[in-house]
Amino acid sequence: MTFDTEIDRRNTDCIKWDKMESAFGVSPEDGLAMWIADMDFPPGPFLQEAMQGLLARADYGYFCGLESYEDAIIGWMRDRHGWTVEREWMFTTYGLGNGIAITLNALTAPGDEVIIFSPVYHEFAAKITKTGRVVKELPLAIVDGVYTMDFDAYAGMLSGRETMVIACSPHNPAGRVWTQEELTALADFCQRHDLLLISDEIHADLTFAGHTHIPMHVAAPQIADRLVMTTSASKTFNIAGGRTGCVTIPDPDLRARFHRFFNTLDMQPNLLGVALTRAAYSPAGAAWCDALCTYLEGNAAVFNDGVNAIPGLSAMPMQGTYLAWVDFAGTGMERPEFSERVYGTARIAATPGHTLGKGGESCLRFNVGMPRARVQEAVDRLADAFADLQ
Amino acid sequence: MTFDTEIDRRNTDCIKWDKMESAFGVSPEDGLAMWIADMDFPPGPFLQEAMQGLLARADYGYFCGLESYEDAIIGWMRDRHGWTVEREWMFTTYGLGNGIAITLNALTAPGDEVIIFSPVYHEFAAKITKTGRVVKELPLAIVDGVYTMDFDAYAGMLSGRETMVIACSPHNPAGRVWTQEELTALADFCQRHDLLLISDEIHADLTFAGHTHIPMHVAAPQIADRLVMTTSASKTFNIAGGRTGCVTIPDPDLRARFHRFFNTLDMQPNLLGVALTRAAYSPAGAAWCDALCTYLEGNAAVFNDGVNAIPGLSAMPMQGTYLAWVDFAGTGMERPEFSERVYGTARIAATPGHTLGKGGESCLRFNVGMPRARVQEAVDRLADAFADLQ
Repeated sequence: MTFDTEIDRRNTDCIKWDKMESAFGVSPEDGLAMWIADMDFPPGPFLQEAMQGLLARADYGYFCGLESYEDAIIGWMRDRHGWTVEREWMFTTYGLGNGIAITLNALTAPGDEVIIFSPVYHEFAAKITKTGRVVKELPLAIVDGVYTMDFDAYAGMLSGRETMVIACSPHNPAGRVWTQEELTALADFCQRHDLLLISDEIHADLTFAGHTHIPMHVAAPQIADRLVMTTSASKTFNIAGGRTGCVTIPDPDLRARFHRFFNTLDMQPNLLGVALTRAAYSPAGAAWCDALCTYLEGNAAVFNDGVNAIPGLSAMPMQGTYLAWVDFAGTGMERPEFSERVYGTARIAATPGHTLGKGGESCLRFNVGMPRARVQEAVDRLADAFADLQ
Repeated sequence: MTFDTEIDRRNTDCIKWDKMESAFGVSPEDGLAMWIADMDFPPGPFLQEAMQGLLARADYGYFCGLESYEDAIIGWMRDRHGWTVEREWMFTTYGLGNGIAITLNALTAPGDEVIIFSPVYHEFAAKITKTGRVVKELPLAIVDGVYTMDFDAYAGMLSGRETMVIACSPHNPAGRVWTQEELTALADFCQRHDLLLISDEIHADLTFAGHTHIPMHVAAPQIADRLVMTTSASKTFNIAGGRTGCVTIPDPDLRARFHRFFNTLDMQPNLLGVALTRAAYSPAGAAWCDALCTYLEGNAAVFNDGVNAIPGLSAMPMQGTYLAWVDFAGTGMERPEFSERVYGTARIAATPGHTLGKGGESCLRFNVGMPRARVQEAVDRLADAFADLQ
C-alpha cells in the first residue's frame, strides 16, 4: 500500500519537517511532525505523470488551454459531489488563503465584523485581521461529543455589525462533516442576519464511511445570492505548493462585485498548479482519493482509540479530514505542562489549540496524514509521556 | 547552436501559436507567430534540471527554503547589473502584470493619472484602467531614428493630477536601452513633479553589444524614496508560465505603504516559479543569457536590415530585447491595408502598433525571439508582400 511507504521529507524544504524545530523546539532527528496540514505520503502516480508531461513539453512560456483544467474541476464537482458548476462562476486564485483574502477585500468593508465558528482553522482569523476587518468568534457547542453550531445561542451574541460568515465544511479541526440539517440552519442564519457566506470546502473530498459532504450550494441553493464557495485540490492531493485554488460564485451580481476587485489584481494561473489540479481531478485521482479516505479513516481510528485509552486525554470523533483534535483538560494540567509533555517528552510537533480560537485552549491538533506505523508511534509516545496519570 | 533548433509549439497550449488564428486570422499551419513576448527556443538545460529536481523530490506540499531563491535574485542583480538588493526589499508577486497591478492599488488612488511613455507595452495602460486609474500618455520623441523621452515637452502637458510614472527600461517596443543621462532626466522629472516611479526592468538582461542596462536604483539613488523596481526572470528565460516576479522597494516608508495592501492579499510564491527562477539566476543561466543576447542581436540585425531594404518599411534600430518595431508609414498605406499584407499575404502574426498607444498607429511589433531561419523567412515574406512597392 502506497500510504504505508515511509518517506523522509527532512532537509527537503518541506515546511512540516524543516521548520518543526524552529516552531516547536521538536528536533526532526527523532521528532514526529504532526502540525501543518499536508501529508507524509508520496504523490499519486498521476501527479508524477503530469510533472513528466511538463518536463517533456519543455515550455514554460505563456500558456492557454485552461478549458481542460476548468473541465476537470467541473467534472470532479459533478461526479464526486453532485454539484453543477458553470465555467463562468470560477476564479482561479493562488491557493485558498489568497482566495479568502481577496473575497474579504472584494465583498466586505474595513471594520466589518466577520463571523467564524471557533475553534477553527487559524488562518481565517489571520486573514480577517490582515484585511482590516474584525474577527467575531462564535463558539461551537459540543453535543454528543462532537462540535455543532448553536444558532439559538448565536442570535444573542451579534452586534449587528457582522456582514459575513466564513465557515469550514468539513470542519477543521476534528473533521465534522456537517449534515443537511446543519447546513440548512447555517443558511437560515445567514439569511436572517443578512450575512454573506464563504463556504470553505477545501477538505470536501476527505470524508469517512457513513458521512457525505454536501456542497453548500447544493445544500442551500436558496442562499446562492450571498454565497462564495472555495475549493481546491491542494489538501486532498498534497499539492499546496502549486498555489492554486478556486473561488466559485454562482450568483451573477455577487460575482460582478467580486470581479470588480479581483480584476484589479491581474492574476493568471500558473503552469504547475493547473497541471497538478487537472491530473488530480481525474479518474485515477478519484481512485487514489477513495483509497486515501479509507486509509485516513484507519489512521484516525488508531490515533483516536489510542489517545482515548490514555487517562486524561480525549480525542474528538472524526468524520473526515486528517486533523485530529485532542483535549488535555482531563489531565488537570495547564497548557505549558501538557504542551511540554507533547513537544518535549513525546517529541511530537502538533498545532497549539489556542491558536484556533476560543474553545481550543486545552487542546492540540494532530495531523494523522502519515504512514500508520508513525501514527501508532505517536500514540505510544503520548501514552509514555502521560503514563504517570495511569 | 541551441537557438537554431526548430521546435514546434503548435497544439501544445502555447498561446503564441495556438491563439494566433483566433487573434489575427493567421493559421499556424503556414503562419509565423511573432506577437506575444516569449521565445521559440528550447529551455536552458538548467531549467530542465530544475524540473527534474522537482520530479525527483516528488513533494508538492507546503515548502520553505525561499532564502536560496532570494539569494539567487540578489546575486544576479549584483553580478549582472551592479545593483545591491537587500532581502527585505523584495516581494514575490505572480508575475509582473500582477506586481504592477498591486503597486497601482497600493500606492495610487482611484482617479489618479498615471504617466506612460507611448508607444509602450500595452498592458501598462490596461492595468492602469483596470485599477480605476487614468492613463496619461506622454509621447516618446524620435531623435536620430530612435525613441527618447522629451521632458521639456512633457512639462507643458501635465494636468497636475499625475501621481505616478510607469517606465519600461529597456523599452518595449524597439529595445531602447536608456542611458545614464536619460535616466537622470527621468529621475529629475519625477522629483520635480512629485511622482512615484515604477521602473519595469523585465527586459534588463537582454541588451546588445555597446549598450548597458542601468537599474534605476543605481542610476538615480536620489529618488529611492519614490521608486518601485520590478524584475523577473520570465522574459529572459522564457518562464512566464511560472508566474513569478519581484517587486523591489528600497525605501522603508514606501515599502511599508506597499506592504499594507500586499499583506491583505495573503500571497505565497509557487513551487515552479521559485525553482525555475533559482535555476535561471545561476552561473549556467548567466552563460545561456550571454549566448542568447548575442543570438538575439544577430536576429535583430537580420530582421531590421531585411525590413529596411523593403521600400516604405522602416525598422527602428534595436539596442536590446527581441521586440522589433516596424513603421509602415512610408508605404502610404492605411492600417487596414498594411495589416492585411502582413497578416493575410505574409501570414505573420505581429502585434498591432496602435494597441501600444499613440505613435504606434502606423507600426507593427515583431517578436524575433526564434531561430534565425524563421527570422529570415519572415523578412522574405514581408519583401514578397510589399514587392509591388519596389
